This record gives sequence, structure tokens and C-alpha cells, in this order.
Amino acid sequence: MSQSAKIRDVVITPVAFHDMPLLNSVGVHEPYALRSIIEVVTDDAYGLGESYGDSTHLERLQKVAPKLKGLSIHDTNAILNICVQSLVDDTTTGGDGMAGMVTTASVADKVFSPFEVACLDLQGKLAGIPVCDLLGGRVRNNVQYSAYLFYKWGGHPGQPDDEYGEALDPAGVVKQAKKIIDEYGFKAIKLKGGVFPPAQEVEAIKALHSAFPGLPLRLDPNAAWTVETSKWVAKELTGMVEYLEDPAPEIEGMAAVAKEASMPLATNMAVVAFAHLPPSILQGAVQVILSDHHFWGGLRRSQTLAAICATWGIRLSMHSNSHLGISLAAMTHLASATQNLDYACDTHWPWKPRDEDVIVDGALKWVDGGVDVPTAPGLGIELDREGLARLHRQYLDCGLRKRDDTTYMRKFQPDFSPKIPKW
Amino acid sequence: MSQSAKIRDVVITPVAFHDMPLLNSVGVHEPYALRSIIEVVTDDAYGLGESYGDSTHLERLQKVAPKLKGLSIHDTNAILNICVQSLVDDTTTGGDGMAGMVTTASVADKVFSPFEVACLDLQGKLAGIPVCDLLGGRVRNNVQYSAYLFYKWGGHPGQPDDEYGEALDPAGVVKQAKKIIDEYGFKAIKLKGGVFPPAQEVEAIKALHSAFPGLPLRLDPNAAWTVETSKWVAKELTGMVEYLEDPAPEIEGMAAVAKEASMPLATNMAVVAFAHLPPSILQGAVQVILSDHHFWGGLRRSQTLAAICATWGIRLSMHSNSHLGISLAAMTHLASATQNLDYACDTHWPWKPRDEDVIVDGALKWVDGGVDVPTAPGLGIELDREGLARLHRQYLDCGLRKRDDTTYMRKFQPDFSPKIPKW
Ligand SMILES: [Mg+2]
Ligand SMILES: [Mg+2]
Repeated sequence: MSQSAKIRDVVITPVAFHDMPLLNSVGVHEPYALRSIIEVVTDDAYGLGESYGDSTHLERLQKVAPKLKGLSIHDTNAILNICVQSLVDDTTTGGDGMAGMVTTASVADKVFSPFEVACLDLQGKLAGIPVCDLLGGRVRNNVQYSAYLFYKWGGHPGQPDDEYGEALDPAGVVKQAKKIIDEYGFKAIKLKGGVFPPAQEVEAIKALHSAFPGLPLRLDPNAAWTVETSKWVAKELTGMVEYLEDPAPEIEGMAAVAKEASMPLATNMAVVAFAHLPPSILQGAVQVILSDHHFWGGLRRSQTLAAICATWGIRLSMHSNSHLGISLAAMTHLASATQNLDYACDTHWPWKPRDEDVIVDGALKWVDGGVDVPTAPGLGIELDREGLARLHRQYLDCGLRKRDDTTYMRKFQPDFSPKIPKW
Repeated sequence: MSQSAKIRDVVITPVAFHDMPLLNSVGVHEPYALRSIIEVVTDDAYGLGESYGDSTHLERLQKVAPKLKGLSIHDTNAILNICVQSLVDDTTTGGDGMAGMVTTASVADKVFSPFEVACLDLQGKLAGIPVCDLLGGRVRNNVQYSAYLFYKWGGHPGQPDDEYGEALDPAGVVKQAKKIIDEYGFKAIKLKGGVFPPAQEVEAIKALHSAFPGLPLRLDPNAAWTVETSKWVAKELTGMVEYLEDPAPEIEGMAAVAKEASMPLATNMAVVAFAHLPPSILQGAVQVILSDHHFWGGLRRSQTLAAICATWGIRLSMHSNSHLGISLAAMTHLASATQNLDYACDTHWPWKPRDEDVIVDGALKWVDGGVDVPTAPGLGIELDREGLARLHRQYLDCGLRKRDDTTYMRKFQPDFSPKIPKW
């Protein structure tokens, strides 16, 4: 009687795509970004998930994958339990492809996430409805993203400049913003900071404020500042940013800054798992949480996070790592069904080569700074097997097996320290 | 392309079924209990919901119902928004069929709930999967319920004794427990208290403890005690109850009792809406929340409540009012998919005449104190149109339009006061 489908196979393919030399507090992006592509296969269809590509994470995914065979694609409770049980003795840290910046996220939730997304893709395909309908229905047809600016080198050392070129000062940042907004139409701007002394980054925000009057701005130094420095920056940027993201490390640091900052503080570093919510709320540490289904345990658990934010009056935004089209589709469906999403989501999309992806072109349409929510069943995307093979070959050839912004940086700047806080 | 279905019609039918003279802190159950039966109709199928039957609530349901026509059965976000917007100016209180005992639940969530359940029933039917699969999959195949004991008169005044007869002292309560456990096999016992002076109810629990050694016990006086009395009862019942339910009124009262009680405190009165969670958690007021999809806004929002309980280390049980088979099916699906359900759920099922219901017999099987989770698509139940017509006729004939335990009690005991706390 039941029309649910059983998982026949799970295929995990590591891929690499070209990345640009984007600077952050722990180093610089390497020439390739790594991802894992997850196919959950039934007799009649496949569902897609995307996650981190570091070898530690891949091993965790591979450990869980065979145990999922025979389960119903609707039995995500069982899948989560298998992830928890399989990883209960796993005390390795990192392996998340987040360069040490989201170190305390739940390992089980990170491993569960792409399997859940793939199952939702399958559930939607089976029912003939888009994933956003599985999540309660879209409350918006176009999901807005922000212009995610980075200080960057002109190109990777030894290679010609990339299409964005150098951005190492306020003028370079404004130029980058103009290019990226010209192409995508973004209506909010985020600058990744923590690269230069705070006064210079404050100047960059002021330059953006002058160049793009009225556009909401954000600055995210990835916890590179002390509490005192954070307070100083907060004072300097009063009235100029919609939120200040992870100025200082840890819940305690954020709570101390929050006591004096005039703007909301946002985080995707201090609060990255459900266990962090009670202490953070108790201390009033953050006023905005950047949700990310890749480490919050998939789309439904991200909806739970959204409901918790609504209940406690915390505002909601969305975090991004370097990603491909499957993640963009999943983020877009989730965001479209989330009533209390208060800000444009982050995305690294513009930094990815246009011709490198694993999904068939055309499903995700950029319109006015956002992505139109796909209406086809499931995530609304199809696997481009030729693209997948090419990016997998690139993974094999590039030799990278884990993200390590710091080691790459030290090749060119041997005394570089990733220690935070730095200023 | 999409196979979602649109809502063509919404039919709301008030019904009444015979109830027994069950005593509580605000009075006694009237000869009939009122419910509303909600059919959400598409071109090809119908989905079922069940809710309170008081006239105020019926009017709210009727106000929302026509606005749902044309919506997708998956667009529960839109349905909730319509409920919120339709009721934003509704400042009437009560009308919940809970005899003034759950007065501060969210009106919009109460109205939304049966529509959401009916849409999930339809979504499951359309996809060919049971509702529990829409909720992440069952983690148990049989949902345990508790033996819900009541002090009661032998029968309604002027009528012959009902099949349970009188229970007005510890011996009567033990006799009732034996009968109800003989029939259903329940493995946990709850006594509704707040009827007699606390010392007598403590004696009843001690009698149950002797008669059913090893069976978990609970006592629920519906906030009939002061904080001091509650502390005394807690001391008397140390080691004898798995939790003490709503001993004293309000979050503040519960918090004061919790400071000294050795057992967890449970509630379905002090914390009955998402807005109550932050202050309750801040004060450590309760250690167990009795979830109830009828006032927490449906099955998915009850899952959110469960996730919040898991995050903050609050245990989870389930509340019940007098109900029919649709509610029992919905509760069973929800409970089956809720990992962190820590206790047997409450149900008034044994107090309902076996031959009065609105669903076709046989779908819900009682086994070993629990209900086997239906495996047919949707809720796994079908409407018995003859039964519905009969119970609707009973509604029309009985003349009751709202639950009022106090007024009914005063017919026989004119000086009865529903004031709480009472002792
Ligand atoms: Mg960040
Ligand atoms: Mg109760």
C-alpha cells in the first residue's frame, strides 16, 4: 500500500572546483575548494545532497552510507540515529572544510545533513512537489542573497589575475562590490574582515556606506578581535551596519561585546549547534544567528532552529561556505519556506567558476539579487554527470584532501599566524 | 508538473458524544463532550482534523475555513498566516473546550491545528505514506498511553450508574484502575486530582502504589494547591510518582515548588504556548512539558516543541482532553515519530462510549496499553459518515454549546467554587 521508497544505494563523490585567493582571519582560500556530492538512490530515482569535502568528513560519510541501505527515504529519524550511533566514538575534530572556523558543530548533524537533503529531494520527486512544499510551503518566490565581498589577491601566486583582481584596501573593496552587484543585483553587502587591522576594515565599511547609500552592510572578522577592539569597532560603525558578525570569539566574548554594541551581533561561530543555544540565550550573546543546514543537521532541523529563534526573539540570517549548485538549491528551498528569515542569505556563488558545477545548467535563476525558488519536484535540479566526472577528476588531480587556508598562506607569508583574536 | 492538490472545500461539523461525570478542580464533566470534525476536501480526497467544539472556537474555525479554498494542501505556512491574520483582533478568551484550564494557549495555534492535521492526512494519502512518515518516520510501532483515572460519581445525577461507577476515595480509585488496566493493559497511571483535600489524594496515590507496585504514577490537581501545599504533597509522594503535574498555578508557582520538589514537575497549564517557554526555562519552572497538538499548533509545531525540550533538557509527555478517533490517530502518529517522548501519553479514550465515534472501526488497535501506529496512508483512518451524522444530531439535540464543568457542578452543589488554588 505504501508508496514510500527504499534506499538501494548511496554514492559519495568528492569533487574539487577552482577557487579564488580570498583572504580571511586564518589564511587564504586555496586554488581549489573541496565538496562531496551525495546521491541517495532508490529503484526509480536519485536524490542529491552536498557537503564538505575534507577527507575526515568523507570518511564519516562513507562510514554511515552503507548502513542506510534498505531504509525508507522518509525515515530520517532512523538515518539521524545511525549517524549519531556511528559517530559516538569519533573524537576527531575538524574535518569540516570550514578552516577551523566552525569547530564545535555537531559531527552527527554535519554527517546527517546531506543524507537528509537527498531524502527530501527524493520525497519531493516521489510526491511531485518541490522541497519547499515539504517544508510548509514557500513564503517568498525569490530568495535574496548578499554580495559577499572578500579582501583578495589579484590571483593565486604564480598565476594570472582572476576576473575579480585585487582587493586589498577600501577602494579595492568598493570596486569589487560594484562588479559583483552589477552582475547579480544584490541588495545587501557583507565584507569578510579579520584580514587587516580593524581601523582599515572600518574604513572599508565607511567607503561602502558612501558608495552604496541605503544598502544594508555587514562586517564579519571571524572572531579576529578582542572584546575591547570589538566594542571600538561597534562604536565606529554605529548606524552603518545591519549587524556585526562574530567580532569576538566564543559566547562569552560575544556577550561582553553585546552589552555595549548598538547594533545586533550575529554569529556562525559561537552558536553552531543546538547545545550552544541555552548558554547563548542565557547570556544574551547574539541577536542574529546565521543558520546553515550543512552543520545544523539538514533542512528540517534548520527549521527547528528558525522556530527557536522566533520563540526567543533572535533574528535569522544564513551562512555559506564555498559551495556548488546542490547546496544553493537546498538553501533556496529552505529560505523560501522560512517565515522569519530576516536578512539576505550569504553565498560564495560569485567566486565559483560559471562552468564548474555538478548540476545541469538553468535550474537556478538569479533575478534581482536572489534566486527564484525552483518549482520542479524535489530540489528541482538534475545531476550533470559529465560535470560531476570532471570535478571528481579535478579532485583526484589537485591533490588537496582538506581545506587548510593557513598552510597555504604560510607558503607566501611564513610568519602568518591564524591565532584569534588577533587585534 | 506538481502533484500537489488544492483545497476545494472545508467542512466543519460539531459533534457531541456521551461523557461520564468525571470530577476535577473546576467542576464535573457534563453528560456530553463537544468536538469539531474538520474535513479538508480536494478534488480527489479528504483529510481529517479534530478540535474543540465550543461555539467560540467553532466560530473561529468557520471564520478561517473559507479563506483556505484554493490553497495547496502543502502550504501550511499560508494556512497559519491566515489563522494569525484572521484572529489578530480576536480578544475573546476561552472557547477552547478546556474548562478554563488552558486559558493562555495561542488562539491562532488552536485554530490552525485541525487544518494542519487534515492537510497532513491529505499529504500522506497523496504520497501513499502514513503521517508519521511525513514527520520523520516512526521510532516506535506502538504508542503507550496511561491509565487516566478520575474521581467520579457513579453516574450523572438522575441517571443510572455508568459502567465505571463511583470513585470517591482511595479504594474507589484502585478499583477503577483495576478495571481500566484489565481492559487496556496500561503500564502507567495518572490520577486527576484537585477534587478532594490533598491528604486524601496523597492517600489515593499511596493506595495505587501498593496495588500496582512498579507502575509509574502521576498526580495532576490542575493547579488546585498553593505553593506550600504543593511542597508538602511533593514531600509525601517522594519516590512514588514519576512526575507531579501542575500542582500550583502559573510559571512562578511551579518554579517555587520546583525548588524543593524531589520529583520532576510537569505542566499543561503553566506552559501552553511558545511564548511561555523563555520565562519558564529562565525560572526552571517545569521539568516535563505535556505536549498537545490541539493547542501547540498542530503536529509539526509539536515536533518543534519536542526539539526545544530536547535542546533544553526538558522531558516530554502528552496531554489529552476528551476526544474521538481522529485525535487519537493524530496523537499516535506524532508520538510514534517523536524520539524524545519520555512517558506514556494521556488519553481520555476509555471514558468515551465504544459505539460513539466518527471514524470507521478497526483502524486504531489497542495492544498492551498502547495503540499500534497505523500503516495506511495519511492518518490511516476513514470517516464513518453515519457515525458523524449521529454525533452531529446528538450535538444539535443535547443543547450544550460550550464546556462548562463549573455550572454543571453547581446544579448539584450550589456553593461549589472553581477558584484555584483551593488548598
Ligand atoms: Mg561568519
Ligand atoms: Mg494536566
